[in-house]
Amino acid sequence: MKTAAFADRLAEAVRQRGPLCVGIDPRWEMLPDELTRKHVDDKAAAFAEFGQAVLELVSPYCACVKPQAAFFENIGWDGARVLGGLLADATQRGLSTILDAKRGDISTTATAYAQSAFQQFNADSVTVNPYLGADSIEPFLSEARSQARPRGVFVLVRTSNPGGGLFQNLVCDGKPLYRVVGDEVAKWNDGGLGECGLGDVGAVVGATNPNELVELRAAMPRVWFLVPGYGAQGGSAAAVKAAYLPNGLGAVVNSSRGITFPYHPSDVNWKSRIVEAAKKAQAELR
Amino acid sequence: MKTAAFADRLAEAVRQRGPLCVGIDPRWEMLPDELTRKHVDDKAAAFAEFGQAVLELVSPYCACVKPQAAFFENIGWDGARVLGGLLADATQRGLSTILDAKRGDISTTATAYAQSAFQQFNADSVTVNPYLGADSIEPFLSEARSQARPRGVFVLVRTSNPGGGLFQNLVCDGKPLYRVVGDEVAKWNDGGLGECGLGDVGAVVGATNPNELVELRAAMPRVWFLVPGYGAQGGSAAAVKAAYLPNGLGAVVNSSRGITFPYHPSDVNWKSRIVEAAKKAQAELR
Repeated sequence: MKTAAFADRLAEAVRQRGPLCVGIDPRWEMLPDELTRKHVDDKAAAFAEFGQAVLELVSPYCACVKPQAAFFENIGWDGARVLGGLLADATQRGLSTILDAKRGDISTTATAYAQSAFQQFNADSVTVNPYLGADSIEPFLSEARSQARPRGVFVLVRTSNPGGGLFQNLVCDGKPLYRVVGDEVAKWNDGGLGECGLGDVGAVVGATNPNELVELRAAMPRVWFLVPGYGAQGGSAAAVKAAYLPNGLGAVVNSSRGITFPYHPSDVNWKSRIVEAAKKAQAELR
Repeated sequence: MKTAAFADRLAEAVRQRGPLCVGIDPRWEMLPDELTRKHVDDKAAAFAEFGQAVLELVSPYCACVKPQAAFFENIGWDGARVLGGLLADATQRGLSTILDAKRGDISTTATAYAQSAFQQFNADSVTVNPYLGADSIEPFLSEARSQARPRGVFVLVRTSNPGGGLFQNLVCDGKPLYRVVGDEVAKWNDGGLGECGLGDVGAVVGATNPNELVELRAAMPRVWFLVPGYGAQGGSAAAVKAAYLPNGLGAVVNSSRGITFPYHPSDVNWKSRIVEAAKKAQAELR
């Protein structure tokens, strides 16, 4: 039996548990004291145990998880292995997984990154940077679409950081760069639509620019949005709702620190704080 | 004694051995049969032995080497360790090192990538993608400038791939996007000038667009250029020379396949082919 399309698997996860995406960005100094004391000389073990605990605690309340490759790369040569283990665990729990790596390269190099993301890390999707043009996106699409379990790609369109507009908001041939990129994303996406009417080339559109979120939603009606910037970065649940389609699908909304670090490291009740934060976000976003 | 500035160390390497940068993009199917037979079940060992051989063979003829992170990430969990070993070996041989990872992220995530590049991998410089804006570049600069051995960053400005112009050539407020990005690079670079008059924020400018190379050289007189696209990608040595300043500094010119794979895998004389290719490129580029 052929596995369902990327867009349809994500749609099913959102229907079941709502649009929350939990960002997993572990940093040593923010981990519970309990874990840093236990694994004082082994960051990889601490990250693995923390990540596993987060997955267990949040999986009833979110459609997907988004581990940030940088923080795993940063802990030493074992970081990739820990990240791979976490992604496998998330998949087993029925979560859609987004490898947040923001890769961008061309030709055989892009293919190598795509194969790493989809085969070695076995992620359902990966974030990519559009600056190098169509030939930096196509190798990812080609790999995504040729897997037995089809995968997806989220292209950076309008990011949530304060300086994101420096280039993204430049007006090019009458429209902002993020719109030009968005129009290309919409075209690529039309090559991989699922039964739910959405496709396999998503767009990263920050919650911190509500007007642009509204504009891009209207311009890209068949594109899944990954919306960062909700919660700790200042985007409100009300602003975020502009990313949803009338049927309630169309967006997953990421919160990282707000869900995984809502406690002081010395707090022995960190697990229940995570569950509370995930439950609250799930209710707010639905 | 304080280590010399990034720009000055690179200038010294170029003065001594010319502007060739050897790109190390190992792919299993292109390695010499000798190595794939010896390490048939261990890609990491084959990559390590091949990389070490390349370093030994090319180091008299090049200023720097540029391993491509994707190909190491792609071989399994040990890829990062092999890449780290190769960078350490290159540094010991007096080569400047460019980690070609094209990272681009913000805030603490960008800091994590920068720390990986400069501390864990201990590279002299790293390639970065500008799409996310100034707050995606600043964490790299801050890490680069705070190391005891100061480091550098190469920002993608105008890439060498056929589709690179899709977004990079859009005309924004009267000038192409690559010029807008280039002007920002020039400003960031002025914060880290060395005694040679060049700085620590370089620009990636492809040899496949000779007119743009001339234009950007004139617009960015204090910026180191990393020039891909020479050799196998079609950029000529004549075109590339537009990247040099009158004093012969200002650019390193990358060749990957042309230097490291100028033979059929079955060729037992692969080592002398590599030496010949490196010698020839050194002579052409000087």
